[in-house]
Amino acid sequence: MSSPVGLHRVVTPAGVLPQAAQRLDASGPIATDEVRITVERLNLDAASFHQLRSAHDGDGDAVRAAVLAIINERGKMQNPVTGSGGMLIGTVDEVGPDSPLGLKPGDRVATLVSLTLTPLQITDGLADWDGLSEQVPAKGWAVLFGRSIAAVLPDDLPAETALAVFDVCGAPALTDRIVRRYDSPTVAVLGGAGKSGSLSLAAAARAGARTVGIVPNERERQLLESAGIADHVALADARDPVALAEAVTAALGGPADVTVVCVDVPGCEHGAILATAEGGTVIFFSMATSFPAAALGAEGLAADVTMLIGNGYLPGHADFALEIFRAVPGVRELFAVRAAR
Amino acid sequence: MSSPVGLHRVVTPAGVLPQAAQRLDASGPIATDEVRITVERLNLDAASFHQLRSAHDGDGDAVRAAVLAIINERGKMQNPVTGSGGMLIGTVDEVGPDSPLGLKPGDRVATLVSLTLTPLQITDGLADWDGLSEQVPAKGWAVLFGRSIAAVLPDDLPAETALAVFDVCGAPALTDRIVRRYDSPTVAVLGGAGKSGSLSLAAAARAGARTVGIVPNERERQLLESAGIADHVALADARDPVALAEAVTAALGGPADVTVVCVDVPGCEHGAILATAEGGTVIFFSMATSFPAAALGAEGLAADVTMLIGNGYLPGHADFALEIFRAVPGVRELFAVRAAR
Repeated sequence: MSSPVGLHRVVTPAGVLPQAAQRLDASGPIATDEVRITVERLNLDAASFHQLRSAHDGDGDAVRAAVLAIINERGKMQNPVTGSGGMLIGTVDEVGPDSPLGLKPGDRVATLVSLTLTPLQITDGLADWDGLSEQVPAKGWAVLFGRSIAAVLPDDLPAETALAVFDVCGAPALTDRIVRRYDSPTVAVLGGAGKSGSLSLAAAARAGARTVGIVPNERERQLLESAGIADHVALADARDPVALAEAVTAALGGPADVTVVCVDVPGCEHGAILATAEGGTVIFFSMATSFPAAALGAEGLAADVTMLIGNGYLPGHADFALEIFRAVPGVRELFAVRAAR
Repeated sequence: MSSPVGLHRVVTPAGVLPQAAQRLDASGPIATDEVRITVERLNLDAASFHQLRSAHDGDGDAVRAAVLAIINERGKMQNPVTGSGGMLIGTVDEVGPDSPLGLKPGDRVATLVSLTLTPLQITDGLADWDGLSEQVPAKGWAVLFGRSIAAVLPDDLPAETALAVFDVCGAPALTDRIVRRYDSPTVAVLGGAGKSGSLSLAAAARAGARTVGIVPNERERQLLESAGIADHVALADARDPVALAEAVTAALGGPADVTVVCVDVPGCEHGAILATAEGGTVIFFSMATSFPAAALGAEGLAADVTMLIGNGYLPGHADFALEIFRAVPGVRELFAVRAAR
């Protein structure tokens, strides 16, 4: 009996989710709803890699040995200090007959669920990795559960580019879903020149919205204006509620129906709420969002706004984001600028 | 020119919201959209009062002097150490002709926005307060802005009871709004025997839902069962995702369409997500909710669920909660048990 969230792969402690497990069973035979992937490369989470590098004084051999030990011991790559993992690239090897993921053998895929919950076995001792970068060439296999997420890497884009799009693909998909609930919607995207921000702006425009992209400095204003993906571009500090609300209102003729928070700095909650119309929605994608600040902020402002915790998963989100990326030159320009920095 | 969120009352620093202000202008003449209230009692936030009591070694006179100094200096009661305030009870004295709050002179009201953003002036030196409890008899006035929240205290309930209901009145109102979006909805309320939990259970039932109340121990199970406000009562640790999801599924015949998190302990995010059906909604009311745990948890579980930050404000929320409280004996029983503890 397999569990769609992988409970049957948990060895210790019994009864927890795979992410919380100390050790997973990464053995090769798969359940009828699982998928086995031949691993090509691991992308370690940056925080995890930096911790390992520091702990071993930059000695690549020692870092490699440490990663190998973690994977052998835990049946997954989850740094016990940082708790974080990363993702992997590989090729689909076998697909169980009941797998709902829509993959087929030979597909080259990226896993969009964390390595912290992905059963993983390494067979080459990571011999091709120097231990000096997050990119880990590797041989071995990984297992995806019934409820898991993997995206087929497209032929027309470099893998690095596709991964950068996948990394933020929940934002445009959720923006699209929410914006379509409003008539003649107006949308403000805080951090509009970034990766998730530019995809969200483009998604909002495709969903029929009039948009403003908010940026923190003159350089990003020029970038976003020249990308041409927002109806308006305005410069404001998203941490300053009054200034932000004034900038949004000036650009859109009133507060936004939907405000999308894509800036990873703390303290943007009150501004996002104040910039949003009554009956509107704030979508928080920033991991720097404070739950109490948002909840208490809306109450203090007597603001009847719906506040969403940005879920990184929606069915079809990876393809949706790639479609926008391919169709909108301005989004590609902004991604290229970020990649070059 | 008055601002509906009170910007015109901010003295320093210029341009911030009243809650972030160092000092507000609490002078008596009101703008056309403001309301002035004659203060009867302040209810200090528990964290604030405990800090002051500790800082002054339990010396009531010193605590009184400290509170008075804060109010005189800041034009509001916001403890500079804890950052928190409280609320107040009073009688409406004057209503500006453009006030949208629906109050009239003589109404006895509780303010539902925090004292941290409410202009306040004390005229009796808090002479009737011994400095030994959070309940502060006081003479003076307070000002409500255009966008503010005050609820008229009902004649048929003690003020203490009404305040306990108002304290959590956002939960049943938002539960009602969300549950009505589903056909034949099923609802799980984590912490169903508590104040916000019991009101949410009753609201869900009125909105047509089949419900399960989740409780952490045998005592609360008996209380909730005897209150008779949930179709099912189940015992589970909300921090254990697998156990929680099993309890909900066993009670409802499947995961819940709407899961309402009313337990103030950390670590309930993954369980709430796992207990919720695809396309369902999780409403987080607990201030112990971790934004990243919720966002990353949904992604790791490939869960297409909508996750809401519980907004404490919806139009009409106070009256709605009072209505449920009056109509449902089981809710009143559970409030009485909490009050007696």
